[in-house]
Amino acid sequence: MIKGEIVEELKRIVGEEDVLTEKEDLASYAYDGTTNWYHEPDVVVFPTSAAEVSEILKLANRERIPVTPRGGGTSVSGGPVPIYGGIVLCTVKMNRILKIDKENLLAVAEPGVVLMDFNLALAKEGLFFPPDPQSFLGATLGGNVAENAGGPACVKYGVVKQYVLGLEAVLPTGEIVEFGGMTVKNVTGYDLPMLLTGSEGTLGVITKITLKVLPLPPATKTLMAVFDDVAVAGGTVYQVLSGGVIPSKIELLDNWVINSIERLQPMGLPKDAGALLLFEVDGIQEAVEKEAEEIERICREQGAREVRVAKDAEEANRYWTARRAGFAAVFSAAPTVLAEDVTVPRSKIPDFLRKMEEICKPRGIEYSVIGHAGDGNLHPSLLTDKKDPEKYAKAEEAMAEIIEAALELDGVLSGEHGIGLEKKKFLKKAMPPKAIELMKGIKRLLDPNNILNPGKIWEEDQ
Amino acid sequence: MIKGEIVEELKRIVGEEDVLTEKEDLASYAYDGTTNWYHEPDVVVFPTSAAEVSEILKLANRERIPVTPRGGGTSVSGGPVPIYGGIVLCTVKMNRILKIDKENLLAVAEPGVVLMDFNLALAKEGLFFPPDPQSFLGATLGGNVAENAGGPACVKYGVVKQYVLGLEAVLPTGEIVEFGGMTVKNVTGYDLPMLLTGSEGTLGVITKITLKVLPLPPATKTLMAVFDDVAVAGGTVYQVLSGGVIPSKIELLDNWVINSIERLQPMGLPKDAGALLLFEVDGIQEAVEKEAEEIERICREQGAREVRVAKDAEEANRYWTARRAGFAAVFSAAPTVLAEDVTVPRSKIPDFLRKMEEICKPRGIEYSVIGHAGDGNLHPSLLTDKKDPEKYAKAEEAMAEIIEAALELDGVLSGEHGIGLEKKKFLKKAMPPKAIELMKGIKRLLDPNNILNPGKIWEEDQ
Repeated sequence: MIKGEIVEELKRIVGEEDVLTEKEDLASYAYDGTTNWYHEPDVVVFPTSAAEVSEILKLANRERIPVTPRGGGTSVSGGPVPIYGGIVLCTVKMNRILKIDKENLLAVAEPGVVLMDFNLALAKEGLFFPPDPQSFLGATLGGNVAENAGGPACVKYGVVKQYVLGLEAVLPTGEIVEFGGMTVKNVTGYDLPMLLTGSEGTLGVITKITLKVLPLPPATKTLMAVFDDVAVAGGTVYQVLSGGVIPSKIELLDNWVINSIERLQPMGLPKDAGALLLFEVDGIQEAVEKEAEEIERICREQGAREVRVAKDAEEANRYWTARRAGFAAVFSAAPTVLAEDVTVPRSKIPDFLRKMEEICKPRGIEYSVIGHAGDGNLHPSLLTDKKDPEKYAKAEEAMAEIIEAALELDGVLSGEHGIGLEKKKFLKKAMPPKAIELMKGIKRLLDPNNILNPGKIWEEDQ
Repeated sequence: MIKGEIVEELKRIVGEEDVLTEKEDLASYAYDGTTNWYHEPDVVVFPTSAAEVSEILKLANRERIPVTPRGGGTSVSGGPVPIYGGIVLCTVKMNRILKIDKENLLAVAEPGVVLMDFNLALAKEGLFFPPDPQSFLGATLGGNVAENAGGPACVKYGVVKQYVLGLEAVLPTGEIVEFGGMTVKNVTGYDLPMLLTGSEGTLGVITKITLKVLPLPPATKTLMAVFDDVAVAGGTVYQVLSGGVIPSKIELLDNWVINSIERLQPMGLPKDAGALLLFEVDGIQEAVEKEAEEIERICREQGAREVRVAKDAEEANRYWTARRAGFAAVFSAAPTVLAEDVTVPRSKIPDFLRKMEEICKPRGIEYSVIGHAGDGNLHPSLLTDKKDPEKYAKAEEAMAEIIEAALELDGVLSGEHGIGLEKKKFLKKAMPPKAIELMKGIKRLLDPNNILNPGKIWEEDQ
């Protein structure tokens, strides 16, 4: 519990109206996009400038108060949950787009800009920011950078880090520093922007972001391929990619997800299908036509029982709305959802899907698979209930085995959600001890008093 | 001068034939791709495994002997020059391609694989590795990663770091560590592969590299646009890009370079042109045709006096051979060449070119501009002679002003060559003190005895 005089000092820094201390307000900042963790902060502050962030961090560093940075709070790995209380530093009032520079294909924005708003503003200039985490309606750019977010479009366009040119950040000790620049090519010393990107808010509070953006592709085309067997659908993904066509998106929905969507919001999806693959190709009209044909051919060759090519934007939209509804359907299907985020090399998707079944079926665990098959980033989710200890223990046990299976298949612990609270106990399995030691050394270097987002990524005893 | 017993120990580690100590052998490892620096090592070793690299570094760390990693030695910023003598650790005997995995669009290779050999092996599988520093005939993959190399194709495909999925490296203290993984999406803790990428061989010796690769585009097309005014050519670059077409390459050659190429090897380039722009587009046939038309239209609209669309691969090859000959022409034109590598936002290219002229003309300095205009990465080179102190002082003065000009135009100190020895004295102008302090802190964390490539990136007093 922090003292009243600290709260007063915070009010002097950001203004009275930008400090929350009432119990009912604090509750809103106690969890992330899931219901898996709940820890109330002592106070929530809404700075509006890097200078204010700096003053907050200097104060917190002096008084050894934990500070948890937070954007839209859409994380699903527990990143913005203030497990040691203290200050939640919420960036949503730093939400100005400072520059959209079409000539140089870049944009500069504050961390609190919501991804959707950013893309709407870019679209007016014929531009777009490709990474597209499905939380884009609420996720902020700061969170996107801090988590090195992904999404469906990464199969062609890569993840957030591939767009970060420069960052302004406030270090845990309060210094405001500019890292990187405004050009794609930049080899001026160590890549400090990449050190902050994906560091889950543990090394600095990002206060300004310079991002590479791209011209909007003139045409897109969406295809839905229907498979009887989810593993066959998974295998089709790398057949398409190694054939030379790089779609902008390849998404997989399993039978469970298809049926959940249809229950919530009937869209005419084939309820008896083992799995669907959704493809999007983009580029000039001639290219998308040819690529769509090629994908259709490969899907049929691999055994798709049906391939629907969206005839217009309305139909395409329907499929992508279904895809987005899928994740919501998963999270609303059980009191607790363990949303896996392992990523395996694409050719290992069928093996992984079979392994999932072997792990979950005998335990009677209900699970679903939805995800960015195009880059091997699947989100198998285990439906469980934290309040039912026996059931939850089974799910946790299964989760550990799923992670083990992914790592054995040359996969990684987290593709795009981050480690946060959810996976820190598995970190030792995924990283050699020396690499963890290096991370901790870097953390100590930047944050000697461990005030910034403490308790995330690794366990205290690691 | 290191002791005989150390040399004996090195021979025990790597074998007698893989240790060089003769004066005439050492001379070959005293410089890089330029003639700007010359410092002989005491000994050169050629390890063939990570285990051998580890033993070498443990020995060097114990005895406090400087170790300078070296690949093909094609650097132009002094990176592999052993300015404090000691050991040159040359990776060219670790030159196996361990895996080409078409299904997952990745390859695993040792650091001594020459970029050209890598791409030839990939091509057999219908794949390619896009970054293409023009030293590809000799540059190794290890050097490419250590310098985060670029090249012409980065305008569309990005730089080396965008392809690094995982690294095995030996830390200066001798530990062999695996960083990253095999998937594009990976947010498992801090991005340690990105910390080593571009660290210019100061944080670890890279011993294995996992790279993302892409399917070879089915078609390419090359265009040459001829301009009277180099600044107008420069301005055309961002007109093309902001129009929505992203060519795979956009190169600029100024009048000096055109004439030097024609002197060395007549290719029918227009000798009276102010500048040439060379474009390449790639993708499916229909797309490249349309994009080439669009580029031609914009070039003419911007005032190109001629646009030649290469009618076949032979003509296209001729233009690209000319481009490659350009850099050689620059380096053979004077005893000392200060090869600038500043990068400015593309829209600032015309301003920067005018500024170059203002800086060099009044001082009577001969200079040329060649470079990757598509990403604002120009290589204006100053022709001078280190042995003529007055002339050299003028060139150094001009170089300092050019760097200042680039930074004022929101540019960066180095786009793709690295800081090395060449630009370390300018680092303070390009990076805030706190960022330099952080880099030095990270260096101390990984290399407490400062044995690995000491004397690079920053000056001792920084």
